[in-house]
Amino acid sequence: MYLRKAQYHETDQMGFIHHSNYIKWMEEARVAFMDQIGMGYAEVEKAGVVSPVTAVSVEYKRPVRFSEEVGIQVSVLSYSGVRLELEYQFWLMPERELCTTAVSKHCFLKEGKIVSLKKQLPELDQILSSVR
Amino acid sequence: MYLRKAQYHETDQMGFIHHSNYIKWMEEARVAFMDQIGMGYAEVEKAGVVSPVTAVSVEYKRPVRFSEEVGIQVSVLSYSGVRLELEYQFWLMPERELCTTAVSKHCFLKEGKIVSLKKQLPELDQILSSVR
Amino acid sequence: MYLRKAQYHETDQMGFIHHSNYIKWMEEARVAFMDQIGMGYAEVEKAGVVSPVTAVSVEYKRPVRFSEEVGIQVSVLSYSGVRLELEYQFWLMPERELCTTAVSKHCFLKEGKIVSLKKQLPELDQILSSVR
Amino acid sequence: MYLRKAQYHETDQMGFIHHSNYIKWMEEARVAFMDQIGMGYAEVEKAGVVSPVTAVSVEYKRPVRFSEEVGIQVSVLSYSGVRLELEYQFWLMPERELCTTAVSKHCFLKEGKIVSLKKQLPELDQILSSVR
Repeated sequence: MYLRKAQYHETDQMGFIHHSNYIKWMEEARVAFMDQIGMGYAEVEKAGVVSPVTAVSVEYKRPVRFSEEVGIQVSVLSYSGVRLELEYQFWLMPERELCTTAVSKHCFLKEGKIVSLKKQLPELDQILSSVR
Repeated sequence: MYLRKAQYHETDQMGFIHHSNYIKWMEEARVAFMDQIGMGYAEVEKAGVVSPVTAVSVEYKRPVRFSEEVGIQVSVLSYSGVRLELEYQFWLMPERELCTTAVSKHCFLKEGKIVSLKKQLPELDQILSSVR
Repeated sequence: MYLRKAQYHETDQMGFIHHSNYIKWMEEARVAFMDQIGMGYAEVEKAGVVSPVTAVSVEYKRPVRFSEEVGIQVSVLSYSGVRLELEYQFWLMPERELCTTAVSKHCFLKEGKIVSLKKQLPELDQILSSVR
Repeated sequence: MYLRKAQYHETDQMGFIHHSNYIKWMEEARVAFMDQIGMGYAEVEKAGVVSPVTAVSVEYKRPVRFSEEVGIQVSVLSYSGVRLELEYQFWLMPERELCTTAVSKHCFLKEGKIVSLKKQLPELDQILSSVR
């Protein structure tokens, strides 16, 4: 679980964390998740592969305030070798109250063209297939 | 249509506008849309009503680069008096190539409680019902 | 003068535009200024030259609120061929009340090394020397 | 020392962390510093006192890349009871190479008016006087 403290610069005049920041937190949690399963972003980009976001959806259930801590859990929702779907659960800590759920979709590009991970990064392909 | 130039500080190291910025652009286009239909945000907040985002979903079809101009069209997808759903189409200008579509969902709060616009802001209720 | 409307997503829970956004507004005004004097960023980067910020300083005199419009005036404070110093005046519109002043310092890099604009981009060198 | 990992969403197309993010990192380090000396932001704001930034200056000595970790050291440069000046040193970890230095200036407001901390928050006044 990726732990993240809500920052003052992330609040808006409604007194809560602005909803756009959750997209950034999803990316931070995703980067930590990739590191954790053994295929960091930097390593993937070194292989010439980038993994752009093709879609995101977020459901905000309960607002987060400055200085509250959120724990974000990432899991693989689906993986086809060509497309990857990740799910995110945002838990308000330490009570572990679910405050937000989200999904992001990704493809894999090399030199601007969609590629299969099985061929380009078989190691990551195997990991993503197994953590499903 | 809300026109927005993609800024340098919005790019990431992939060389495109970072996907989190679209959530901010949606808000900018929504604020302009509300102004245009005659009920600006400032006026709504003055009535003690806030309209938090309860959900967003974005589909990225084509990336946007620094200094490109995007035109964002907002329309009411559904409105129930209590809940509002807005749709966004992002057009790359001046070719008018569709680059992104998105949806945001909103409720209306007064003193922290969900309220019906029909009672709280009948004028805005009438406008939103008619622009559907 | 570069005109910029303060956005909702730029506010913080103090009810004003968060001070970090002024650094982004300076960049936006600088990009517009470069376009206007005839040497757009995209053109400069196409010549393989980047112009990183080496220092910034900002004095906040009066806060800016959501939906207020600010006009930003950019001028060349000093230019040596190798180093460039720009000055920014932020005017609250339409009253033209001075709300912020700022300075940014820049060098010019080609392939990671500091270069003289006189040699690399003589056209821009001439323009910057004349608008001083 | 406040430790901060540079995030992907903070990069720009030059391939480095965008310079505007340092202002946010200064705030994060400042909030952690206040917590550590025993007067958290939340506590100060609960007393009706806000501490807006009246000026910032940053000198960028060496760029930071995605996934690099930075340690930020905050110290009190000057404190008069009415005005506070903080200094920041950004160290690239784990080599502890100095990459950025910065200063922020603050006043203290209660109900929109400049106040002396000695009267409003004598406890914080004493702490700030002693950590100088």
